[in-house]
Amino acid sequence: MLFQQITVIGVGLIGGSVGLGARTRKLTGRVVGVGRDPKTLARAVELGAIDTFSTSLLEGVKDADLVVVCTPVDRIAHVILEAASHVRPGTIFTDAGSTKHNISCELVRKLSADFPYIPAHPLAGAEKAGVEHARAELFQDRVTIITNPLTNALTEAAARVEKFWRALGSRVVHMDAEEHDRVMASTSHLPHAVAAGLAAATPIDFLSLSAGGFRDTTRIAAGDPALWAAIFMANRDPVLVALRVFTDHMAEFQRLLEAGDGAGLVQWLAEAKKVRDALGS
Amino acid sequence: MLFQQITVIGVGLIGGSVGLGARTRKLTGRVVGVGRDPKTLARAVELGAIDTFSTSLLEGVKDADLVVVCTPVDRIAHVILEAASHVRPGTIFTDAGSTKHNISCELVRKLSADFPYIPAHPLAGAEKAGVEHARAELFQDRVTIITNPLTNALTEAAARVEKFWRALGSRVVHMDAEEHDRVMASTSHLPHAVAAGLAAATPIDFLSLSAGGFRDTTRIAAGDPALWAAIFMANRDPVLVALRVFTDHMAEFQRLLEAGDGAGLVQWLAEAKKVRDALGS
Repeated sequence: MLFQQITVIGVGLIGGSVGLGARTRKLTGRVVGVGRDPKTLARAVELGAIDTFSTSLLEGVKDADLVVVCTPVDRIAHVILEAASHVRPGTIFTDAGSTKHNISCELVRKLSADFPYIPAHPLAGAEKAGVEHARAELFQDRVTIITNPLTNALTEAAARVEKFWRALGSRVVHMDAEEHDRVMASTSHLPHAVAAGLAAATPIDFLSLSAGGFRDTTRIAAGDPALWAAIFMANRDPVLVALRVFTDHMAEFQRLLEAGDGAGLVQWLAEAKKVRDALGS
Repeated sequence: MLFQQITVIGVGLIGGSVGLGARTRKLTGRVVGVGRDPKTLARAVELGAIDTFSTSLLEGVKDADLVVVCTPVDRIAHVILEAASHVRPGTIFTDAGSTKHNISCELVRKLSADFPYIPAHPLAGAEKAGVEHARAELFQDRVTIITNPLTNALTEAAARVEKFWRALGSRVVHMDAEEHDRVMASTSHLPHAVAAGLAAATPIDFLSLSAGGFRDTTRIAAGDPALWAAIFMANRDPVLVALRVFTDHMAEFQRLLEAGDGAGLVQWLAEAKKVRDALGS
């Protein structure tokens, strides 16, 4: 057992999967869920994602050894600061946010050094939100990125949090927070914006004549708008940089097509194929 | 049996699946494959996609009742014109090209009215090309679009070709060729360009930190560059129009993000989600 009590704040797809995984793998004595909607939390108990729940942050965190914050990214720093005033000294914090630099910047200024915060981002999501879709195996063989903890005196806490994410099945990679955000802007946030732009550009009455390519390319456009708007806002500058690189590539495509440059188009497509082939199917 | 002999020109994923489907469902006495590479054609025989083959167009088509042209789109009109000089009068032509207007325009000027050509486009493809990936069920429950035949005196031939694509498992939809090309520009060709632009914009060393969203969004970028360059060239104007609509959506995203307009981003994402949700998972 890694922790006596884990409290998960925000019991949706990610939080529910953290709870399910921790319970299934016996990483903790109990998992307490904190959220706003008692119905959702009661459902999470039924599904085995949490043992008990509270809609009060104070009640939910006061006996926790580890607090895992799985709220939308624009709430994470605030939730950690509020929770810190109710927990026992030494309680460890981690999260599952898709952006890291903004959260660390806020907490480095405001969070007492008594509370170790180990920023994490498990690269596991799905277009289907909600605890109903939570799975104990969601993190299996996925990467969890851990970015620089806030103080240097945290080696023991950092080791425990790393062990926790590993125990959920993921492979831990360490990165600087700003580098994390730059990589995610390219590999996750920009693709989301592009999938949404593509879906929005499609007349609804054309959909019945679409095939697998359209389905795949736009799948993530079904994601939660509020959650993703918060991610874009939290990672604005890196997303704008990645968007500019993409826009330049599309402008080159347009130029080649307008010019009727078939050989140029083959070359342009071949460069893209080289990248995609490097990823594998 | 619908046809005594079907000749498939271009025995790759689509042509191989036409052959497999026709043989499995006993729609024909025999399937003859025509292509350039005897090794590929011999492999197609092994896989059961064709009965026999020839690398000579003349030999391959001379006894055909139906010729199904499954070459890249920039070859289809040329292949039909050449084959027409070797077939028996009344031999019916159809194809599987992803663009229709350009082919019909060329053939309406050059193809003798003795040869009925019924333009078809089965909406079934995959990023994996080649006869190795052919399946008898590739067209099952997919749409096949049939566009206006070249002359009006073709009701019997058109009915037979329609019956053929239905017998392969697909649902036939009739459309005007230009309308077909406009729809495909939005639902197939633009998504391909966008997936490629996204893949090309991604540094290769970021790929190990990508997840399912990137994988889905860029999957079709692994397609054959020459084949897709030909499609873009053949459907240039509609693709440029669709690209402009998409580019406008992305410019609006950029404007909202630069302005830090969170509510605007939620609205922008919600409109995209509405379209994607209408498609289903």
